[in-house]
Amino acid sequence: MGNTRAPPPTTGFPLNRLSFLRDTPAFLSSALASSRVILFNNLHPLTTTTPHYSVHFLPYTTISHLLPNPFTFESEDAYTSAYDSRDPIPPIFVFLGVDEKDLESGFEYQGQGGKSGDTVYKGRPYFAVDVSGNEKAQELALGGVKEGEKTEGPNWRPQRVDMGLPAREAAMVGFGRQVLHWNMNNRFCSSCGSSTISLHAGTKRVCPGTDKALIIEDGDTGNRIVCTVRKGVHNIAFPRTDPTVIMAIVNSAGDKVLLGHNKRFPKGFFSTLAGFCEPCESVEDAVRRETWEESGVRVGRVIIHSTQPWPYPASLMLGCIGQALPDGETIDLGHDPELEEARWFDLGHIRRIIEKAEGGAKDGGGQWVSDGEEVVRIPPPAAIAHQLIAAVARGFVGGVPKI
Amino acid sequence: MGNTRAPPPTTGFPLNRLSFLRDTPAFLSSALASSRVILFNNLHPLTTTTPHYSVHFLPYTTISHLLPNPFTFESEDAYTSAYDSRDPIPPIFVFLGVDEKDLESGFEYQGQGGKSGDTVYKGRPYFAVDVSGNEKAQELALGGVKEGEKTEGPNWRPQRVDMGLPAREAAMVGFGRQVLHWNMNNRFCSSCGSSTISLHAGTKRVCPGTDKALIIEDGDTGNRIVCTVRKGVHNIAFPRTDPTVIMAIVNSAGDKVLLGHNKRFPKGFFSTLAGFCEPCESVEDAVRRETWEESGVRVGRVIIHSTQPWPYPASLMLGCIGQALPDGETIDLGHDPELEEARWFDLGHIRRIIEKAEGGAKDGGGQWVSDGEEVVRIPPPAAIAHQLIAAVARGFVGGVPKI
Repeated sequence: MGNTRAPPPTTGFPLNRLSFLRDTPAFLSSALASSRVILFNNLHPLTTTTPHYSVHFLPYTTISHLLPNPFTFESEDAYTSAYDSRDPIPPIFVFLGVDEKDLESGFEYQGQGGKSGDTVYKGRPYFAVDVSGNEKAQELALGGVKEGEKTEGPNWRPQRVDMGLPAREAAMVGFGRQVLHWNMNNRFCSSCGSSTISLHAGTKRVCPGTDKALIIEDGDTGNRIVCTVRKGVHNIAFPRTDPTVIMAIVNSAGDKVLLGHNKRFPKGFFSTLAGFCEPCESVEDAVRRETWEESGVRVGRVIIHSTQPWPYPASLMLGCIGQALPDGETIDLGHDPELEEARWFDLGHIRRIIEKAEGGAKDGGGQWVSDGEEVVRIPPPAAIAHQLIAAVARGFVGGVPKI
Repeated sequence: MGNTRAPPPTTGFPLNRLSFLRDTPAFLSSALASSRVILFNNLHPLTTTTPHYSVHFLPYTTISHLLPNPFTFESEDAYTSAYDSRDPIPPIFVFLGVDEKDLESGFEYQGQGGKSGDTVYKGRPYFAVDVSGNEKAQELALGGVKEGEKTEGPNWRPQRVDMGLPAREAAMVGFGRQVLHWNMNNRFCSSCGSSTISLHAGTKRVCPGTDKALIIEDGDTGNRIVCTVRKGVHNIAFPRTDPTVIMAIVNSAGDKVLLGHNKRFPKGFFSTLAGFCEPCESVEDAVRRETWEESGVRVGRVIIHSTQPWPYPASLMLGCIGQALPDGETIDLGHDPELEEARWFDLGHIRRIIEKAEGGAKDGGGQWVSDGEEVVRIPPPAAIAHQLIAAVARGFVGGVPKI
């Protein structure tokens, strides 16, 4: 009955992101040559079902000939100042990081000078690339078979972290997907409306100040319209992540948990309440606000239990445990009409459901669990919602106060 | 020496945001009429110094006549379908929420039907509005005196939450500032580059599908270019908040804390390490990655202690406490060259600094504290960095394990 803090499956990112080397073309070019690549088509990764469900990584060397031009990384200054809107847009190779446990590739990079001291970074580099619309790459990926014509072997399959890929691969796919999606939705500058370009191996987009297409005759500067975000550092240049609270709320007596049933849920399915953090709002406040808005229940103390990235498209789930105020436990769905039902479940009831679900869920996908007369289902163990419910069911609140 | 969890100053948001009523024009119009408004000029709020430093709220009724047209809220559908790019852009009134403890205004709103049941929402409504470029409003705000000609009384003053405004007002200013800044930087759709319009009292922007300016002759549809974000719900329609980790790292023996000195810090100033969360990264992983990148120290267990919004422009500080691995305590600044110095400080030393700083800091702005031969300064109590340092100095890690 101890304090349960089992990490959700996408924590423990398996690669060293080496984020400080993303602006170093020599590093990126060298890493790409030794890399394995995850191909995406309309945000679906290339996976296979044989011998088991997993990402179908391709060595970069097998796909490099499919690119329209020899692909090179360039410095931010060089790329920005050479911008010509008539040029084809090069593919975005998202650098995912280096697997430091896999030394087979022989890849090594020695930091130069002050930038990275003289440390030698080693391991297998991984990248993600979008090949939507690239027919040659798609043909190679599917082994000559058209998409939809076969269900086994390599194919584009929609992916969510809870759908059974090995945790290590789910984390890499999630990172690649989130960054590619952000690039797709940020091809234009939200400050001035001009086109932007992708830099730093997919993790930065900037609004160039000049465009060679605007140079018609000698003396033209090629300047684009004035834009406020060209000076200084602005968050819109970097991928967006949306902090989201998800919370198991216990009653003041510590023997019940508040769960909700959304209109979109299947019948009998209940989960923790959740919602986006608001601008200028602490996580603790967001838990209290969302719980009240969705259920009418007023929450006092709140702690943050654990977190889980949820890259569909860009959430960071902040898993919390809170306790209702003694006079604030009445359920009222009349504020924000998001839930169809909210209910206090007895923790003994929930413990039995959890034990059955964890014992019987072979595929990690969750199961319908019959408990007495009522059939109730909660999220599978891979979801942080399950971990939060399990934590309170197993005594996180009660006995020695932990919050 | 107990577990310190004093909330940073902007937690405990003082208003009920009633976020689910932001798309209800009847509610917003009625609330605005009874409201107090925070005026902003180039993101600086109107504050006064008499009788003490505070926001200079203006009743909406005193500024309504300064608006170019009678101002009305409209439904999303009505506003979007009537879009005409030739029209002047109306001011954005950001709805901050209702102070439910202040019933003096007499404002009441009865929820209608399923949307908000029959609950009656009461209290003083607050809004924020940007009057940059509105000469009449500026004249009224400054009482006829030109900006820069006086230093006392109402004026535009840059504001940060740690600069001494009452906590309640700092939270309201922070919310208004973050939303206005997001609107300023999102006047164009990042997916297609077309202009966007502000809805839901400043908290949503959409890319209209039609523009009446494109209707030249009978039969024209006024359709704008195709944009992928017009169908479904997309995060780019909503304000962005950047999750950021900030962490007090203790050594494996539990008697030292790791602090850093940034190039931009004044001499002798040390603080906790911090950095943005990456796409598809848990908070716990972000703490480990950032600590290693900036200092070379490798961290094992991590807990999240408390959080603080930091709306400059849009951060959510996730305050963490972590512990270094026994064989990972060597400092190496050679990876990411962000810090000029990182150092393990004895917790006894830090405790003396904290006691002096908390005892002597009259203005909450922090003080230089001499400790023996070395003069060291840490952030003031209003900053979450201070709370994290104080928590570990007072025994958060050690004795009974709390993480």
